[in-house]
Amino acid sequence: MGIGEKKPLALFTQIEEMVEWLASFGKSQSNGVTRQLYSKEWQAAQQAVEKRMEEAGLRAYYDDVGNLFGRLAGRQENASTILTGSHIDTVIDGGKYDGAYGIIASLIAVEYLYKHYGLPRKNIEVVSLCEEEGSRFPMTYWGSGSIAGIKSFADIQDLKDANGTPFVEAMRQAGFGQGKYPQPRRADLDCFIELHIEQGEVLEREGKSIGVVSHIVGQRRYNVTVMGESNHAGTTPMGWRKDAMHTAAELIQVLMQKAKETSPELVTTVGQMSVEPNISNVIPRKVTFSMDIRHSDEQVLFEFCEAVCKEFKLITSKHHTEFSLYNWMNEKPVKMCEKVNKISESILEREGIPFKKMTSGAGHDSQVFGQFCPTSLLFVPSHKGISHSPYEFTRTEDLEKGIQLLIKVLYELAY
Amino acid sequence: MGIGEKKPLALFTQIEEMVEWLASFGKSQSNGVTRQLYSKEWQAAQQAVEKRMEEAGLRAYYDDVGNLFGRLAGRQENASTILTGSHIDTVIDGGKYDGAYGIIASLIAVEYLYKHYGLPRKNIEVVSLCEEEGSRFPMTYWGSGSIAGIKSFADIQDLKDANGTPFVEAMRQAGFGQGKYPQPRRADLDCFIELHIEQGEVLEREGKSIGVVSHIVGQRRYNVTVMGESNHAGTTPMGWRKDAMHTAAELIQVLMQKAKETSPELVTTVGQMSVEPNISNVIPRKVTFSMDIRHSDEQVLFEFCEAVCKEFKLITSKHHTEFSLYNWMNEKPVKMCEKVNKISESILEREGIPFKKMTSGAGHDSQVFGQFCPTSLLFVPSHKGISHSPYEFTRTEDLEKGIQLLIKVLYELAY
Repeated sequence: MGIGEKKPLALFTQIEEMVEWLASFGKSQSNGVTRQLYSKEWQAAQQAVEKRMEEAGLRAYYDDVGNLFGRLAGRQENASTILTGSHIDTVIDGGKYDGAYGIIASLIAVEYLYKHYGLPRKNIEVVSLCEEEGSRFPMTYWGSGSIAGIKSFADIQDLKDANGTPFVEAMRQAGFGQGKYPQPRRADLDCFIELHIEQGEVLEREGKSIGVVSHIVGQRRYNVTVMGESNHAGTTPMGWRKDAMHTAAELIQVLMQKAKETSPELVTTVGQMSVEPNISNVIPRKVTFSMDIRHSDEQVLFEFCEAVCKEFKLITSKHHTEFSLYNWMNEKPVKMCEKVNKISESILEREGIPFKKMTSGAGHDSQVFGQFCPTSLLFVPSHKGISHSPYEFTRTEDLEKGIQLLIKVLYELAY
Repeated sequence: MGIGEKKPLALFTQIEEMVEWLASFGKSQSNGVTRQLYSKEWQAAQQAVEKRMEEAGLRAYYDDVGNLFGRLAGRQENASTILTGSHIDTVIDGGKYDGAYGIIASLIAVEYLYKHYGLPRKNIEVVSLCEEEGSRFPMTYWGSGSIAGIKSFADIQDLKDANGTPFVEAMRQAGFGQGKYPQPRRADLDCFIELHIEQGEVLEREGKSIGVVSHIVGQRRYNVTVMGESNHAGTTPMGWRKDAMHTAAELIQVLMQKAKETSPELVTTVGQMSVEPNISNVIPRKVTFSMDIRHSDEQVLFEFCEAVCKEFKLITSKHHTEFSLYNWMNEKPVKMCEKVNKISESILEREGIPFKKMTSGAGHDSQVFGQFCPTSLLFVPSHKGISHSPYEFTRTEDLEKGIQLLIKVLYELAY
């Protein structure tokens, strides 16, 4: 029996109910969600998902860092595992969909498949990853990174949250990090599939229902420091100045210009700036600004940064100022699995659902899994691209299209 | 008997001693000077200057706001008064010369003249103005403004310092504002002459000993606010952004470019900036920066600001952002007295002392007096242009050249 024959019914109401249900754990006063790693709200959410997994007939279990799995064991002996899900943690006062949607979608999809098609050939596991956002401790991808074996207890030994609570202490208090549960590192994964809101406006603007992600972009982040000389705003002629602000303005201009010339897909952002001494009638001595550069091709990223650096040298020299670059993040682009993507694309083409092959400009757990096992990241539209906000919103019909697709992809992979 | 015939002797040692003497009141740990209006250090300095005036044979008296005068009464009946001096207050951790030099120079000059030439025809008064810097209360030119009648008690009623001490209270505690002394407003002034350090690098770089100031520049200060839209640094293509930082960088670039094109004398400074939300991976929603524009011609200033505003409209419209200007300072240029300046220039030419006719890019008490009576502002070089700093420095031979000039100018005007 093919998957197309039994139409999943009543998904619409179920999706809306589940979004509100999961958002109720850590609901903020502004109708957002705050569910920080290992907090009471986080624990309540994981326990609720655990209960739900068991009600759906999945075997629920945790690993030692607090990732929660719901296993539907395959009929094949020594079967490998199809993992699907997303992260349960949120930023402070975040939205109802970021991370949560991937977990809800996986629960609904696997419950549906089990109910209608029984046990799969391969194992399917729904995963509620413990942490992705890095909003409590200075650490991102703790959940996926632990499963992939690229994060370990050594990485968190000295970390504390804003209240001074050690990471290790918070983990212990939530019941993890004690060897009570299996170690998180996995060797049995066939692939990982993550359904996520786009957190951008591309799908909505272009009228597409699904984004099939080919790459998660590489990111480089720098602090650029321009050193000039403080001087009196009234008594120093323009030609004698070593103006760190004037220099910085020209550097930012050139950076943006070059980004537009290089590739329509390259994005660069100057989001932070600080000025010294920051007084209206004193020429700034020092200006520091952040520089965030992203592209899906490592070579393009490298060449762009080299070219920008060359331009910066010319400009600062013209201004008789100096600059230094501090590169504090350098994440390489990650390719998603073409084979798994192809399955999605075939289904979408067959069903006439408008979709877009695209890159992801944001980081996701898929970026960690993608370095470790075949991974597919699928997007649904985000209204106005708003995310990390109580105003985050995706229409239920878009959420449903994503889940219908996930059901079909999991069927092809696991049944 | 002409002034040239008696050479003032031993000025060199006397100047150095007096600079150290006055700097000893309010000396800071970093060898700077902190003498804020009505503070104990300020009171001690005024009392020391008062004593010194009397030792020199001048009649010392205060007005009701705390300006200190040392009067050498003229022989003529109902003679008008030549006023000379500068301000006694300093910024926090300021230098030994800013303000202090004008008082010391006037004391030495008048003492010398009285000793060698007896009583003048017109009255000469040395003035130690109570306040110019605005570094304790949000009020500048309190001393000169009170004498000129453009500041009054009504202006200070609600002002407090950083510790919450009311202006009125501080004034009372120092013994002023009680009607005990004469009202500060003066109607008898013939002219005001101020000797001051340049607080810029022009004289030193050009190898000139004296600056004869033709105008004190007009100043306009604005806050420029650019409103864009916050968005994700990774998921928002460059072409869709409403980037307040990118816009601000272009505005600053254009502002600087236009300043250079308009007039070699026009200066403009962006000294302050704030960014919202100021996060490296979020496109800034709002950027606010200060804009300080100075020129000696009101028409040039006006036309420049109009032209800049037009350009700002074009640029923000191109970026799909918006901007607003808040003009919080608008001081008109002030012309110094050509007649009094001519006296200085003739002396300097005759004696072969290199000087420069120049504008003052900084504000001084002369800017207040200049709106009220004939005023002459004379500069001596500032080493490297450093001011408002313990590193403020002028060579004693330069200080002396200024005092020699002041002696001769006062002689011509008052004897």
